[in-house]
Amino acid sequence: MGKRESIGIGLMGLGVVGGGVARALKEREEAIANEVGCPLRLKKVLVRELAKKRTAKVEPYLLTTDPRQIIDDPEIDIVIEVIGGESPALEFIKEAILRGKHVVTANKEVIAKHGPELLSLAQEKGVDILYEASVGGGIPLIAPFKQDLLANKLSAIYAIINGTTNYILTRMASEGLDFSSALKQAQKLGYAEPDPANDIEGIDAAYKLAILATLAFHTVVRPQDVYCEGISRLGSRDFRYAKELGYAIKLLAIAKEKDGSVEVRVHPVFIPEDLLLAKVDGVYNAVQVEGDLVGRVIFYGQGAGAAPTSSAVVADVINLGQRINLGVSITSSLRLDPTKRIKPISEIETRYYLRLSTVDRPGVLAQISKILGDLQISISSVIQRETDVATKSAQIVLMTYPAQEWAMQRALEQIEKLEVVKEISNFVRVED
Amino acid sequence: MGKRESIGIGLMGLGVVGGGVARALKEREEAIANEVGCPLRLKKVLVRELAKKRTAKVEPYLLTTDPRQIIDDPEIDIVIEVIGGESPALEFIKEAILRGKHVVTANKEVIAKHGPELLSLAQEKGVDILYEASVGGGIPLIAPFKQDLLANKLSAIYAIINGTTNYILTRMASEGLDFSSALKQAQKLGYAEPDPANDIEGIDAAYKLAILATLAFHTVVRPQDVYCEGISRLGSRDFRYAKELGYAIKLLAIAKEKDGSVEVRVHPVFIPEDLLLAKVDGVYNAVQVEGDLVGRVIFYGQGAGAAPTSSAVVADVINLGQRINLGVSITSSLRLDPTKRIKPISEIETRYYLRLSTVDRPGVLAQISKILGDLQISISSVIQRETDVATKSAQIVLMTYPAQEWAMQRALEQIEKLEVVKEISNFVRVED
Repeated sequence: MGKRESIGIGLMGLGVVGGGVARALKEREEAIANEVGCPLRLKKVLVRELAKKRTAKVEPYLLTTDPRQIIDDPEIDIVIEVIGGESPALEFIKEAILRGKHVVTANKEVIAKHGPELLSLAQEKGVDILYEASVGGGIPLIAPFKQDLLANKLSAIYAIINGTTNYILTRMASEGLDFSSALKQAQKLGYAEPDPANDIEGIDAAYKLAILATLAFHTVVRPQDVYCEGISRLGSRDFRYAKELGYAIKLLAIAKEKDGSVEVRVHPVFIPEDLLLAKVDGVYNAVQVEGDLVGRVIFYGQGAGAAPTSSAVVADVINLGQRINLGVSITSSLRLDPTKRIKPISEIETRYYLRLSTVDRPGVLAQISKILGDLQISISSVIQRETDVATKSAQIVLMTYPAQEWAMQRALEQIEKLEVVKEISNFVRVED
Repeated sequence: MGKRESIGIGLMGLGVVGGGVARALKEREEAIANEVGCPLRLKKVLVRELAKKRTAKVEPYLLTTDPRQIIDDPEIDIVIEVIGGESPALEFIKEAILRGKHVVTANKEVIAKHGPELLSLAQEKGVDILYEASVGGGIPLIAPFKQDLLANKLSAIYAIINGTTNYILTRMASEGLDFSSALKQAQKLGYAEPDPANDIEGIDAAYKLAILATLAFHTVVRPQDVYCEGISRLGSRDFRYAKELGYAIKLLAIAKEKDGSVEVRVHPVFIPEDLLLAKVDGVYNAVQVEGDLVGRVIFYGQGAGAAPTSSAVVADVINLGQRINLGVSITSSLRLDPTKRIKPISEIETRYYLRLSTVDRPGVLAQISKILGDLQISISSVIQRETDVATKSAQIVLMTYPAQEWAMQRALEQIEKLEVVKEISNFVRVED
C-alpha cells in the first residue's frame, strides 16, 4: 500500500459535538492534511432530520438520514461516531467495523458497556477503534494509559470526571448554597441537563471510570461493577463541617488495585483541602493516576464541550489517518489478566465522616462510640454542637480512622436504632 | 518482516537514571514482553568504569567501557542513552542512528540543542528517536504534543519544569527563608546539586522549554533563543509582598505564539495565588498548555528522579519495540513552519512588580510615577511602608498594568538615576 490521495471520513451525528468536529475538520483542513500526509475528505454526515436548522456549516448535499450511506460507502475509511447513547450508536459502530472501517468515537456509554468486544471485533477485522474523547473531553487520558504509562504497575485512579457535579459542589462549597439551588444554577447555565439524573447520580462518572479502570488494571470493568452514589444527599452543613475539619467535598471516581483485587466506586468524598484535586473547581476535570515508577501524575482540563471534545476526536482521526496513509495496520488490543477480581463495596477500607442528629442529653456520644468500638472502628475526631433549643436536638459529627465498609454499615444500622439518635443526616467516605 | 524472537537493547549510562532503567527493564520483563509481543534483551551496558560499586544489579559480563560494543552490535535494535550532558552523548546518539538503531534518550541538553537535526538524520535512516523523558520526568508531555493535542493551534505554555527551583521557592514562600538558606536545605536533601547554577539560573528549564516550544509551535527553538533569568535575586521580602498582593512566585518557563511570533522565556513570575499552577509545590512539575480547541490543560507530576524518568524511558522503549515487532516503520518528524520568528525580550508585554528602596521624604512616588507615566506605563497598585528610621529609607512596591518590556527597562534606568532612589531592590514580571 502506498501513500493515499485522500482519506474518506463519515461523520455520524451533528449535534453539539458533531458540529464542533465538522467545524474543526473544516477550519484546520490544511494543518490536518500536513499532519496526515494527505487531505481528509468528509464524505457524508448522518443526521436525524435533514431540514433542521444547524449552527454547523456543512454542505447540505453531505447530509443523510440513512446510516448505510456511510457504512456501505467504500470510499469512507474512518467513521466518527458522535451520536451518543447506547443504541443505535453501538449497532452503527459494529457495522462500520464489520465493513472494515476504522472508528473514532466519543461515546462513553458504548465503550464502557461494549469496549472490550468492540476492540476484539476491530482487531479481527484489522481496523482500530479509538475513543480518547469518551473520557475527560480533550484531556489526553486514554493515550497515556495505552502508551505513556505502560511501564508502570498502576495502583490507583482518583478522578473528577463529571463537570456538572463538580460545578454544583463548587457552588455549594464557595457560596453555601444547598443542593437544589446549586443544581438550578447549573441548569440555568447549561452545565446540567433538564433531567440531571445521569450526572448527579454518578452514572456518567461510572461509565468513564469503567473505561479508565479497564485500561489501567488490565481487567474488564463494566459500569455495573462500579459502586455508585450521587451527590444529592449532601447538605450545606456538610460543607461547613468539611471546611472546619480541613477537607473539600468532591464526587470522586476511584479505582484501586491491590493484590489482584480491583475496587471501583463513584461517590462523594472528603479529601484534604491542600491536595491539588481539592482545588479543581467548576466544570473542570482532573484525573490523578498513581504508578509504581511515575508516582502521582495529574491530568487536568475541560472534560466536556464541543471544542475540547473535538480536540480529542480530531487527534484520533489524525492518528488513524497517518497510519492509513503509511499503509500501516496497528490495531489496539487490551492486554487482559483474567485472574483479577472486582471487590464488592463491603470489602473496601476507608475513613468515614458521619453527621448525626441526636437528642441533647449526656451519654449520647458514649452510646455511639460503643457501637463503633465494638466493631473495631476508631474515632479520630468529634464535633458536637449547634444545639437546637426548640427541638432539643444536637448535631454530632464524627470522623473515623480507616475501617471496613461492612463494619461501618453494620454500625450505621445499630446507631440508627438508638433511641437517642433522631437521624443519620449524612455519611461520607474520606480519602487522605 | 515478521514477528521477532527478541529485541536487543543497548544501555548507555548506568548512573541514577540508567540504574533505574536497568531495574525497571529487569523487574517488569514479563509485562514488557507481553506489551511488545516479544522479550527485550539487554545486550550491553556502557559505563565509565567497570569496577565501580553500583546499586543497580546488572550482570557484570554486560558491562563495557567501549561504546562501539553497543554501536557496532547488529543485534542491538534500540539504544537507550542516559549518560546526560552534550558530549559524548550526542556523538553516541548520532553513531547509533547512522548504524540504523532506534534511540531513546532522556537527554534534554542534546535534544534542546540538536533535536531537529537528530530527527532529520533518524528519518533519513528510517529509524526513530524518542525523548519523552527529556522533559518532566515521567509526566506524559512529548507524546501529547506529538499526538493528542495535534488538532489544536496552541497559543501558550506555562511550565514549572525545574524541581530544584520550585522546591527552593516553596520553602521561601512557606517558611520565609531567604534564598541561600533555602538553597542549602535543597542541597542537604539532594534536591539541588553542589554546583546548582544550571538549575537556579534557569538553564535547565530553558533546555526543556526549547524542546516543548519546538513541538508546540512548529518552529525550531534553540536554548539560546530562550530569555533566561534565575531565582537568586528573590528575597524573602518579595514573597511577603507577593502574598499581600494575592500572588505566588514561581520560576516559569513561558512560551507563547501570537501572529507568527514566538516568545520564549524563563524567569521568576508573580502568578495569582488561586491559579492551580500557584499550588504546585516542592519538587513537583506542572505544564499548562493552552489550545484553541482544548482550552487549558495541565500535566502534573514528578519531573525528575530515577523511577519517574524510567517510566518515560521504558514507555518509549515499549513503543519502539511494538513497532519493530510489527515490522512497522514510523519515524517522527517535526512539521516546521519556516515563517515564524522568535520575539526578542524587549518586545514582550506583561505586567511588572517593582520593589524600590528610596529616601523617606514626600514627592518620591511622584517622581517615579512621572517616569512611568511618560513611558505610558500605568500603575495598578502601590504599597509604601516599612520606613527604616536608622537609614531614613522607605520601601515602595509597585504593580503595573501591562507594559512593553523595552519601556519598562528604560523606566528602570531612569528610576535608578533618581537621587531619591537608593536601590531598585527587585523587578519581577507578572502573569495573570
